[in-house]
Amino acid sequence: MGEATQVPHVGIIMGSDSDLDVMSKAAEILERFGVTYEVRIVSAHRTPAWMSEYARSAEERGLKVIIAGAGGSAHLPGMTASETTLPVLAVPIKRGYHGDEARQSSIAMPSGIPLAVMPNNGADGAALMAVRILSLFNSDLHQQYQNFVSSMQEESMSKDTAVQQNGWRNYLQNN
Amino acid sequence: MGEATQVPHVGIIMGSDSDLDVMSKAAEILERFGVTYEVRIVSAHRTPAWMSEYARSAEERGLKVIIAGAGGSAHLPGMTASETTLPVLAVPIKRGYHGDEARQSSIAMPSGIPLAVMPNNGADGAALMAVRILSLFNSDLHQQYQNFVSSMQEESMSKDTAVQQNGWRNYLQNN
Amino acid sequence: MGEATQVPHVGIIMGSDSDLDVMSKAAEILERFGVTYEVRIVSAHRTPAWMSEYARSAEERGLKVIIAGAGGSAHLPGMTASETTLPVLAVPIKRGYHGDEARQSSIAMPSGIPLAVMPNNGADGAALMAVRILSLFNSDLHQQYQNFVSSMQEESMSKDTAVQQNGWRNYLQNN
Amino acid sequence: MGEATQVPHVGIIMGSDSDLDVMSKAAEILERFGVTYEVRIVSAHRTPAWMSEYARSAEERGLKVIIAGAGGSAHLPGMTASETTLPVLAVPIKRGYHGDEARQSSIAMPSGIPLAVMPNNGADGAALMAVRILSLFNSDLHQQYQNFVSSMQEESMSKDTAVQQNGWRNYLQNN
Amino acid sequence: MGEATQVPHVGIIMGSDSDLDVMSKAAEILERFGVTYEVRIVSAHRTPAWMSEYARSAEERGLKVIIAGAGGSAHLPGMTASETTLPVLAVPIKRGYHGDEARQSSIAMPSGIPLAVMPNNGADGAALMAVRILSLFNSDLHQQYQNFVSSMQEESMSKDTAVQQNGWRNYLQNN
Amino acid sequence: MGEATQVPHVGIIMGSDSDLDVMSKAAEILERFGVTYEVRIVSAHRTPAWMSEYARSAEERGLKVIIAGAGGSAHLPGMTASETTLPVLAVPIKRGYHGDEARQSSIAMPSGIPLAVMPNNGADGAALMAVRILSLFNSDLHQQYQNFVSSMQEESMSKDTAVQQNGWRNYLQNN
Amino acid sequence: MGEATQVPHVGIIMGSDSDLDVMSKAAEILERFGVTYEVRIVSAHRTPAWMSEYARSAEERGLKVIIAGAGGSAHLPGMTASETTLPVLAVPIKRGYHGDEARQSSIAMPSGIPLAVMPNNGADGAALMAVRILSLFNSDLHQQYQNFVSSMQEESMSKDTAVQQNGWRNYLQNN
Amino acid sequence: MGEATQVPHVGIIMGSDSDLDVMSKAAEILERFGVTYEVRIVSAHRTPAWMSEYARSAEERGLKVIIAGAGGSAHLPGMTASETTLPVLAVPIKRGYHGDEARQSSIAMPSGIPLAVMPNNGADGAALMAVRILSLFNSDLHQQYQNFVSSMQEESMSKDTAVQQNGWRNYLQNN
Repeated sequence: MGEATQVPHVGIIMGSDSDLDVMSKAAEILERFGVTYEVRIVSAHRTPAWMSEYARSAEERGLKVIIAGAGGSAHLPGMTASETTLPVLAVPIKRGYHGDEARQSSIAMPSGIPLAVMPNNGADGAALMAVRILSLFNSDLHQQYQNFVSSMQEESMSKDTAVQQNGWRNYLQNN
Repeated sequence: MGEATQVPHVGIIMGSDSDLDVMSKAAEILERFGVTYEVRIVSAHRTPAWMSEYARSAEERGLKVIIAGAGGSAHLPGMTASETTLPVLAVPIKRGYHGDEARQSSIAMPSGIPLAVMPNNGADGAALMAVRILSLFNSDLHQQYQNFVSSMQEESMSKDTAVQQNGWRNYLQNN
Repeated sequence: MGEATQVPHVGIIMGSDSDLDVMSKAAEILERFGVTYEVRIVSAHRTPAWMSEYARSAEERGLKVIIAGAGGSAHLPGMTASETTLPVLAVPIKRGYHGDEARQSSIAMPSGIPLAVMPNNGADGAALMAVRILSLFNSDLHQQYQNFVSSMQEESMSKDTAVQQNGWRNYLQNN
Repeated sequence: MGEATQVPHVGIIMGSDSDLDVMSKAAEILERFGVTYEVRIVSAHRTPAWMSEYARSAEERGLKVIIAGAGGSAHLPGMTASETTLPVLAVPIKRGYHGDEARQSSIAMPSGIPLAVMPNNGADGAALMAVRILSLFNSDLHQQYQNFVSSMQEESMSKDTAVQQNGWRNYLQNN
Repeated sequence: MGEATQVPHVGIIMGSDSDLDVMSKAAEILERFGVTYEVRIVSAHRTPAWMSEYARSAEERGLKVIIAGAGGSAHLPGMTASETTLPVLAVPIKRGYHGDEARQSSIAMPSGIPLAVMPNNGADGAALMAVRILSLFNSDLHQQYQNFVSSMQEESMSKDTAVQQNGWRNYLQNN
Repeated sequence: MGEATQVPHVGIIMGSDSDLDVMSKAAEILERFGVTYEVRIVSAHRTPAWMSEYARSAEERGLKVIIAGAGGSAHLPGMTASETTLPVLAVPIKRGYHGDEARQSSIAMPSGIPLAVMPNNGADGAALMAVRILSLFNSDLHQQYQNFVSSMQEESMSKDTAVQQNGWRNYLQNN
Repeated sequence: MGEATQVPHVGIIMGSDSDLDVMSKAAEILERFGVTYEVRIVSAHRTPAWMSEYARSAEERGLKVIIAGAGGSAHLPGMTASETTLPVLAVPIKRGYHGDEARQSSIAMPSGIPLAVMPNNGADGAALMAVRILSLFNSDLHQQYQNFVSSMQEESMSKDTAVQQNGWRNYLQNN
Repeated sequence: MGEATQVPHVGIIMGSDSDLDVMSKAAEILERFGVTYEVRIVSAHRTPAWMSEYARSAEERGLKVIIAGAGGSAHLPGMTASETTLPVLAVPIKRGYHGDEARQSSIAMPSGIPLAVMPNNGADGAALMAVRILSLFNSDLHQQYQNFVSSMQEESMSKDTAVQQNGWRNYLQNN
């Protein structure tokens, strides 16, 4: 159980606990790779001082990557990037009633403050990007990631085989 | 010269001095109404601590309204609204090379943190909104605003008269 | 019960009674702060004379702020702003079948007629903005608003604590 | 010269004299067909009372169709439609610095208040639509419109012929 | 029953019978005003010759206005406008799975071929616009339309009264 | 049963088996015309080598047209077009939670690499386009396609007749 | 000079001679491959009968593919597809003052009438797609296309080499 | 001169040499930090085999991060991410004549293939993100980045001071 007992390498933060359903996908991916992490509620708008403290202390607490998710006029990812020098990955949260505001709020940062934007609700992809970054200097993790890629390929190939063997009509009925 | 010698009632802040050409329209309007103001460069991304200090001390320094302009992934207006309880008016800055990111970054704030959004590059309208707010408890200012509205009406009516008297072809040639 | 017996300080108006479900969130917020208000059906398109009368008499009736909600080609907020000098806050109403027409209809007013636009369906935020404005000259209300901000912060912090104590999986299951 | 001496059948109104360059295309079309018209500056936002008076008196003054052009958060066409029972044709004005606000402000009117939207800056098309409407009960005008359609067809066909005879390279160089 | 026994004055056409649920709102409005009409399935893409024949013969068959509804890449309204000189009102059909293609397909016609665009799914508004046009030369119909406007006003005013008398909470519960 | 026993003339490929419900509409159309085809899972992102192999060998395996469907940042259609000289038809897959990313990802290919884009989820239209292409040199198939067009026309005409005979109210109730 | 003396295999049509600058890029590409073509002005809106005649007779005149370009509410490509069974390639024309109307007008055709959409102003890509189609049954043309692809590859590779050899600063200055 | 003589740690690739003006901003930033890099022309569409080879060999050649820029239907960043396990940063190239296609083509990758998207034309921000990643395990580089942040702060603060000292009118005239 990586969540509580070890120094976290990835901080998964979100503006509201209502975003936990989306952001927890990042936690699941990181657990799969054995990457330590923490999950925190950090609201740019409701708790700006806490956000600032979190971002400024992240590095000395041992974090390497921050994954920040927020919806609507999402300021958490960009403000976190402004208060740390760690790489920050933005996950725009988009619900059915939302427009594209969260993505827009992160995708046009000024040139001096880099912020990497992942797909809407793409917490899992953000976690995989964190793994890619951490793999640069961790050969075990790197090997795990290679295995992940291989199994993803094999899964896709095996589906193609199944469609060929069963015909698409049967496949469609049974899957 | 309201800019330096009096307690400012309106703070005109912007993320970069490159936005000064747009935001100074607010200053011009406020001078016309004799409302004291200050013009500050306050970058949410480059100077987050300064932004926080500015917003938190605004009220005790005597400010009543903050007009905050920023372009791209604009976080200054919303973050300022998060660190003060004064009314904050957002002016999204849009240049030719921009999309609609600045407006989107301010127009979907969470319900607990109100932020009033003005038109793109609408620093003059923001200043007039500030005057409307300050007029609520200042009858002289209120009278000035009524005069402003009247002269705007008269100017529009006189243009209609001129078109009638000269015909639209002449009017178009001479204006 | 602030609705009927006192001079209202905030006018909550909407183009149709079908918008009452959204706009009543403003009434609830104002009641929480003890701000007097009225709720009126004022259609720019169906009852233009009534709209004009409402807007022109608002100030002498004691109103300080008008919150105007409308959907589709929303003209109520902007036309109200044109017929009063009170600050007007626009709440674009967006239903599932709508595009972004209501926001667009309010967000590009000419510079001489300021209109402050709140988030889509953001009647609660509009009410809080009204409270911020009224707080400028009402220290009791101001104190209440400070308390509101503090409790919002505490609620967000306590959720973070709960996630830490219970782990995100338990939290997600129980909330 | 139809502009001044006859009862106008079409009212060409616009929110600002800065829109006259676009809206005068309607006047030119109407002159070509001998339809009487007037050109008026009528601002929904700056002169709401004048707009209301104009719209309410339009019918008794003999107008049959109103062409209303406005940019930004364009309320003139819809509000005019609300205060008259004449058919109103909206011409959204779009400049280089505009988004699509003007079109959006007219294209989603409530079902009870019909407003017909023409292309952005389509004052000439609006004038032709007015001619189609007036032609319903005016056989001379109807014949003129038929001739207009025929000449448009012939012009297009003759261009095709010219391309065939000269080859596209020559045509492109000479046109 | 206006549908079959009289010369129709308004043609309500649509590209597919699947649009009948939307377009029949126009028929209902026209019946309310006693305006004769016909409802036809006329597909620009599946039956281009029939569309051409319909549009070209519309005028001599006595039609005065055509209301054309279509979804997706909607060509029916614009092509009909190209083959008749009657005023044509476009009703873009938008379903949940659609983008804004239908509106776009009608809102940018070349200047020589006017087409008046109504709101998405706005068949009722289109019918009211047809009534406004026909009222220009029919005083009975004109009087009916005035009555319609008055009752719309009264209905809106009475809702405002009901909210005042019952309070918004009761009103919301009971409506 | 064309799917397995003959040299396929059309390759229907998709990035994921989750797109099979949409893409199988192409298979159904091709079967109706007796055009041989294959259905393959070919992921640009998960199996880039397999995609490359598929595209490069398509022609020598006898394929004439490739229909490629993918959602999100859809690279399969464009990359396939880059690795074959066969005509490739892109089918952007759009689900409720998607924006317009898939269409955008295919609609702006560089001029040297042509890619023909069909409507969102338009696998059936893509199959008909494949039939049009194959008909150019196959008179039997061409005749079949003509029949298809005729029956589509007749079906549309017969619906118009049914509406006329039964009246729209009955038709709407019974269809 | 393929334009006049041979049976054309590709019809390049456009709604207006003002689109000839864009559409002539298709002619240039086809000449490079020795594919016969014709360039015609065919307006869906100004000359609907001529459009219908052109599309219906295209096949018997020997055309194999039609490339149709139009701007604004572009109906030419889709209507042509409705009146022929040849493959039709749409080229949306987009000028600086246009929105995305032309693309939208072609990209959502009903499933029974396939229309392949190319990039905005992508007349050259459309011509290459026509060559791909014609190559299916013409081995000389196919070989030419393969050569075209190879030279495109070589040109791109040689630019990479030049950047490596000269350094990017020199390359940028000299290109 | 880092460009030629050392093992590059960052690969700056682009689909066309016409993108070099934008992408070279990344090279300039990396030089400022002494990070080794290479600049390559790698077209997904014109040279897919070369792209594949480049991406697959990147890691063993010593690259740590790839910055990939492309415009239009941009497939280079996503396809590169599919063929390497290094972190890939996408730079959508947007010219005046472009829509938002490049961003859309990268921002919705499937969850298994992470791709980090930077602002449109944000090659400089991408380079800074690469520096943040490389700084995780390089304390000298980390110190340099901290200095960069500090100087950015100081520059912003000094501009605020200059505006205060000179007044905004003077500042605007002199800057």
